[in-house]
Amino acid sequence: MAAALSPLTGRARVLGLTGSPGVGKSTTTSMLVGAFRARDLRVGVLAIDPSSPFSGGALLGDRIRMHSHTVDDGVFIRSMATRGHLGGLSTATPQAVRVLDAAGFDVVLIETVGVGQSEVDIVSLADTTVVLLAPGMGDGIQAAKAGILEVADVFVVNKADRDGADQTVRDLRHAISLGRRELGPSWRQPIVRTVASASEGADDLVDALAAHHDWLVAHGELQTRRVRRAEREVEGIAVAALRARIAGVRDGSELSRLAKQVAAGEVDPYSAADQLTDGF
Amino acid sequence: MAAALSPLTGRARVLGLTGSPGVGKSTTTSMLVGAFRARDLRVGVLAIDPSSPFSGGALLGDRIRMHSHTVDDGVFIRSMATRGHLGGLSTATPQAVRVLDAAGFDVVLIETVGVGQSEVDIVSLADTTVVLLAPGMGDGIQAAKAGILEVADVFVVNKADRDGADQTVRDLRHAISLGRRELGPSWRQPIVRTVASASEGADDLVDALAAHHDWLVAHGELQTRRVRRAEREVEGIAVAALRARIAGVRDGSELSRLAKQVAAGEVDPYSAADQLTDGF
Repeated sequence: MAAALSPLTGRARVLGLTGSPGVGKSTTTSMLVGAFRARDLRVGVLAIDPSSPFSGGALLGDRIRMHSHTVDDGVFIRSMATRGHLGGLSTATPQAVRVLDAAGFDVVLIETVGVGQSEVDIVSLADTTVVLLAPGMGDGIQAAKAGILEVADVFVVNKADRDGADQTVRDLRHAISLGRRELGPSWRQPIVRTVASASEGADDLVDALAAHHDWLVAHGELQTRRVRRAEREVEGIAVAALRARIAGVRDGSELSRLAKQVAAGEVDPYSAADQLTDGF
Repeated sequence: MAAALSPLTGRARVLGLTGSPGVGKSTTTSMLVGAFRARDLRVGVLAIDPSSPFSGGALLGDRIRMHSHTVDDGVFIRSMATRGHLGGLSTATPQAVRVLDAAGFDVVLIETVGVGQSEVDIVSLADTTVVLLAPGMGDGIQAAKAGILEVADVFVVNKADRDGADQTVRDLRHAISLGRRELGPSWRQPIVRTVASASEGADDLVDALAAHHDWLVAHGELQTRRVRRAEREVEGIAVAALRARIAGVRDGSELSRLAKQVAAGEVDPYSAADQLTDGF
């Protein structure tokens, strides 16, 4: 099927949206879906649900709000579980993007909680990555200094009607000025204020996303990012295939046999790994 | 070196400690280090620092508290960054455990923030996994219902002097009774109350850990877990080696060439992956 889809892809704009728990990711996603629908664009949402033992994913209220979009056939929402094998999502997500793209969605929005490097990697598969912050979450700014500047193309300060929003914007602006990354022809990361729960700031955000898209196209960066995404996808598929071969060596008995020897201290893990892939 | 180390390993008790941000993981780790040192045990700590753009790792205060142990040569503390390739930590962590084990540490403690499946996977490489909760973090209990029961061998309710601690213990006990996992010969997950900042509850926790260790030995489960850890390690090394081969095909130009074709819709990603691993 992927073979048949390939010629149809490359049209959708792929957006990544991330941020710490509690900043309003699902609400913002919902707002964006509404804004794109108002522009007659079809939107696919891939919600990377950590379904992790410790995070729990979106609040029920957000899910319900989201469901108001699910009766609209211009909207497709899929929750992708992160359980299972490490790195599984980084393979599965580009594939899901490809399918939605081929199916004619104009925008594909990947929403993920911004904790853990793997989630960041997934979001950075997007053409444009949006990082959400909210006032009163000091962590956000501290983290901003630490590294989100590297992945953000557009910043959103959500809950902008709350105390401390101005300070968050100022802190963020300062952090941006300190950590300005090199992007070749420089893109100045805008800061958009929103109150997603009231759909305030939706137009500003859509404009900022459009501006970034234009910049990507104008500087050949869109192509660069899409090749990078394809690299990740191809590599992921290849690694998964090889992993399956590893697991299948002698009906799966080989890994288990070698692991027992390693656990017993009879074989070192590197020699064991060599033996496992000997036939490849 | 791994070959030379192998016969020396298998002595250390490997503990995993995890929980949501803010429950007091570093403080509890520090308390445990002190308790083990008081028993003349050498302790290695592997702190999985998410160094993720969005989490930021331990607070400075915890790091400083921890540093009081660093002048003690019975304590080794290493912070492991999670940046870099997906799955990198699940390979690197068992190796670091192996080295500390061979170096004669009696206890190896892996501390990681409990968000994201990958961190959970890493912690579950331990012989005994400790899950920390704190009162007033409703998320904790909600998450408990969702899945931490699957990985916890011992629960700690930290900050037990705070309002709501009793309720947290009750909620947790209820969640445990609902979600009791099958472990063959059943282990009843104890709930230990601590105030790690005041080192209260340290002895109870050490006792609970010892009881779990005895249970593991008595039921052959220790060996099972160590073989599972070795499996993960060997598989990780093998996959990393194959990944390096993929990246190196024709000096690395092949993945890039294929990715361009995929991005252009000329080749589907599965065929590209096949071509990439053709020679293996």
